[in-house]
Amino acid sequence: MAQVQRMSKLMIKTLRDDPADAETLSHKLLVRAGYVRRNAAGIWSWLPLGKKVLDNVSRVVREEMDAIGAQEVLLPALLPKEPYEASGRWEEYGDLLFRLKDRKGGEYLLGPTHEEIFTLVVKDQASSYKDLPVMLYQIQTKYRDEARPRSGVLRGREFQMKDSYSFDTTDEGLAESYRLHREAYQNIFRRLGLDYRIVSAVSGAMGGSASEEFLAPAAAGEDTFVDCPACDYAANTEAVTFPLNPVDGAAHGPVEELDTPDTPTIETLAEFLDVPASATLKNLLVKVDGEIVAVGVPGDREVDLGKLGEHLAPAVVELVTAEDFEGRPDLVRGYVGPQGLEKVRYIADPRIAPGTAWITGANKPGTHARNVVAGRDFTVDDHLDVVVVEAGDPCPKCGTGLRLDRAIEIGHIFQLGRKYADTFQLDVLGQQGKPVRVTMGSYGIGVSRAVAALAEQTADDQGLCWPREIAPADVHVVAAGKAAQTELALDVSQQLADAGVRVIVDDRAGVSPGVKFTDAELIGVPTILVAGRRTAEGVVELKDRRTGEREELPVAEAVARLTARS
Amino acid sequence: MAQVQRMSKLMIKTLRDDPADAETLSHKLLVRAGYVRRNAAGIWSWLPLGKKVLDNVSRVVREEMDAIGAQEVLLPALLPKEPYEASGRWEEYGDLLFRLKDRKGGEYLLGPTHEEIFTLVVKDQASSYKDLPVMLYQIQTKYRDEARPRSGVLRGREFQMKDSYSFDTTDEGLAESYRLHREAYQNIFRRLGLDYRIVSAVSGAMGGSASEEFLAPAAAGEDTFVDCPACDYAANTEAVTFPLNPVDGAAHGPVEELDTPDTPTIETLAEFLDVPASATLKNLLVKVDGEIVAVGVPGDREVDLGKLGEHLAPAVVELVTAEDFEGRPDLVRGYVGPQGLEKVRYIADPRIAPGTAWITGANKPGTHARNVVAGRDFTVDDHLDVVVVEAGDPCPKCGTGLRLDRAIEIGHIFQLGRKYADTFQLDVLGQQGKPVRVTMGSYGIGVSRAVAALAEQTADDQGLCWPREIAPADVHVVAAGKAAQTELALDVSQQLADAGVRVIVDDRAGVSPGVKFTDAELIGVPTILVAGRRTAEGVVELKDRRTGEREELPVAEAVARLTARS
Repeated sequence: MAQVQRMSKLMIKTLRDDPADAETLSHKLLVRAGYVRRNAAGIWSWLPLGKKVLDNVSRVVREEMDAIGAQEVLLPALLPKEPYEASGRWEEYGDLLFRLKDRKGGEYLLGPTHEEIFTLVVKDQASSYKDLPVMLYQIQTKYRDEARPRSGVLRGREFQMKDSYSFDTTDEGLAESYRLHREAYQNIFRRLGLDYRIVSAVSGAMGGSASEEFLAPAAAGEDTFVDCPACDYAANTEAVTFPLNPVDGAAHGPVEELDTPDTPTIETLAEFLDVPASATLKNLLVKVDGEIVAVGVPGDREVDLGKLGEHLAPAVVELVTAEDFEGRPDLVRGYVGPQGLEKVRYIADPRIAPGTAWITGANKPGTHARNVVAGRDFTVDDHLDVVVVEAGDPCPKCGTGLRLDRAIEIGHIFQLGRKYADTFQLDVLGQQGKPVRVTMGSYGIGVSRAVAALAEQTADDQGLCWPREIAPADVHVVAAGKAAQTELALDVSQQLADAGVRVIVDDRAGVSPGVKFTDAELIGVPTILVAGRRTAEGVVELKDRRTGEREELPVAEAVARLTARS
Repeated sequence: MAQVQRMSKLMIKTLRDDPADAETLSHKLLVRAGYVRRNAAGIWSWLPLGKKVLDNVSRVVREEMDAIGAQEVLLPALLPKEPYEASGRWEEYGDLLFRLKDRKGGEYLLGPTHEEIFTLVVKDQASSYKDLPVMLYQIQTKYRDEARPRSGVLRGREFQMKDSYSFDTTDEGLAESYRLHREAYQNIFRRLGLDYRIVSAVSGAMGGSASEEFLAPAAAGEDTFVDCPACDYAANTEAVTFPLNPVDGAAHGPVEELDTPDTPTIETLAEFLDVPASATLKNLLVKVDGEIVAVGVPGDREVDLGKLGEHLAPAVVELVTAEDFEGRPDLVRGYVGPQGLEKVRYIADPRIAPGTAWITGANKPGTHARNVVAGRDFTVDDHLDVVVVEAGDPCPKCGTGLRLDRAIEIGHIFQLGRKYADTFQLDVLGQQGKPVRVTMGSYGIGVSRAVAALAEQTADDQGLCWPREIAPADVHVVAAGKAAQTELALDVSQQLADAGVRVIVDDRAGVSPGVKFTDAELIGVPTILVAGRRTAEGVVELKDRRTGEREELPVAEAVARLTARS
């Protein structure tokens, strides 16, 4: 006999009030509806209803990964230090990594992602090109010691993730594995009922080349992305690249020095000269692997140090200190200009295109210069887009002003290339009998985060409101309270369950109908069936949780309709 | 279209030779057949076939836990120190616990079992007797820093476990929750196809009262248990209790001192007097919470300090050192006898029953005494069974000589009582409106260990040999090698898969039939279907992996038979 989940037996305690520490909608509602409970900062328990939702998401992920021929495995979460030391990530992860020692002093970490270990597993298992391509995945507990764990299960320190890895002998093979994952991810997020965008991404600490993020737009999101209202362009803000468009600079006059006392900042300079900040050229000095480098951007824009760091990785970017100016009379603080910096590498934003003219420092205290033309008066060593993106910046594809939006990163796909294969010398014997270095992809979905993203996108004023495939049940049956109503509710529930419908029935004694209705709305199962005032006639009410539409129906009809749907 | 697992795509590398470090059958075969791979001492990866077997075990466990009304949750593995400090287990676990710090210096552990956290979750969720009873379970990764991780996945440092916890307001309720778990465990192990025994157990570091272990007899087992060849008695060796049977000691003569120079040990004494060691009384001095206590056992038996510790817990038992004898002229090393120890608590094995007479120390150097009668010449403060059990010891139930056997502990059920509820003041409002302290049970199944136990019990000379419910597939189809054979093999496989049969097909090109047959035997799927020499006639061979029986059948008949079975 199929099981009905009775609220009288279910371990659930709904809360009327938002938890004091909750800022985001999903955090508030998942706690209030009894899906999750916090054990420590960023460390959560999934209670019975939450576990069902988590399992539903995992099932969808698993089915779509199986469909593209990926093979499920389960690797350990407790990992030895050595492979992560070999890849450099033992250091690179910094404080984000949970590190520990065993009783013998051996060093371990709790896996944040598993590139190293999968590489080693495949190195052990595959010896010939015939063993490849292979795609492996796991749905596993991951660990990251976030500096500010918050937003409930949206950014936990222990969380559930699907991570997969592809292994190919050719670049074309990697592109195909990447394409298969991209399609699987589209199917997964569509089935989950998530609104999402695919955006170009930089690859972060992971290394590698082609990379896209799957973002679920939500106010609670910690990621910012841009999209174009006119074309299909969308990107992580760090991945936006302004095109380099040289202009004809022949009409500009010669460089002219200006006496500009006490104007060491763009603000003071623009005010002194009564020009817009955008007419000036700001030159930020940084150290790249210890060497001083100047970075030029329009005076009204900010340098995005994250973007700069990504462009120059693996070189390390640091800010300069007062000591760095010692013994460097060529560097005049507050009055630096690229036209006099022969000994310094000059990186400029593409907006500083050849032919554009600027007001900038004259490399003398209290002095600036105007009509300083890029390509004529100074040379840009590297044009790199390093400014913080702003709403209204032109779309790199069509020029329309971009929008800035917040989103939750729910998936990420990478073409890693041979970074890890090089580290661990992962070769297979090729068709010509010679060793071939393997090329890899790495792909992730935040499974527990997807639950929070779904809650963010689908909840309404009454509470959670799950898509059917993900909901902890199909129907929430409410017994209004009297014995006959409870009897009918239990009977209908069992009929539905026997027909394969997943049912929660609120059969609690001593709980008012009002509380039961409020709880049903909060819990967010797609259909609510009420055995209420017309119980004697054998009539129940069906309510659509999302639309609020109600309808009274004889029991048999209600059962038939709900059974047909599932 | 249902999926067929093709060996040409499967990530598997079978090995002809046993891994050098493998001692047990399951370790050797699970590695050789490509089910698991070692990442570090006691830390393993489950490869595609291994993951399927692990999932099958989990599914059976989940179905039977759901059937008794237990609710599935998922608690974190990374746990804050404080609750474990409150329960005392932060210290008690010693080196067995993996401990770590987060970026802020907060102390954490990797959960070995979750009594503390479940108690806190229920304290948060349940407030009234109406919220109980409740049974909660999870299938989760657990951590124990074993001193000697070995035997493959049989004793890992990271492993999969089903742990569950029951919460009741009455002792009768706890007994019922315990009974439900006991039945569920019987169903689980029967369905898994495990040969097992239920034995009485002591509760170890867990605290509490009634407790039984589920043991799977196997040569590789690390547990020893006794069972009676004549009756149904079976017990963990530490739980065996010899009955106290007083005898009539009236016929014994008076105590008589013997000059026994240089006989400080039982061996030297028995030789000097030419009596069996069993005629002598051995008195071991220990410290219990710092106080010296004497423990008497027959001279031919060893004291089991583990058993003694369990009897006296939570008191701490230590061995005495030379310093403990300072200022104690009453304690004559090597010549201690209970008849002169008025100031020392005397614990004796039940074999030292009232009326029995012994040769023992006379509390003078070089001197023993004979005809020292228990109850006449000395008083036993506590009769506790503290000897190491030996084969042939009488069954406590029927007196027949016991057998000693090795086994793998696959399950454990405990009536914990109120230990954790007391620690965390877990009360609910009772029916009379007053707080009632909750009583708990705790229940565990080693899920990954069950896979190893099954491998141990079912494997044969050819390799693994899984019961159908647990096997990674129902049928292993072997294409002998020619194109027509491969074509037929793939066709049969697809027909079977479409009918719901789980199929692995060995479609590898360039692999000899002999290697394919050897791999099929090693992998251990219940039925092997060969598309071989009679392929042209449309005839295949069916082989039962366990019995080795073979039969040739037309394809349609073979498919019909295999479909009917699944």
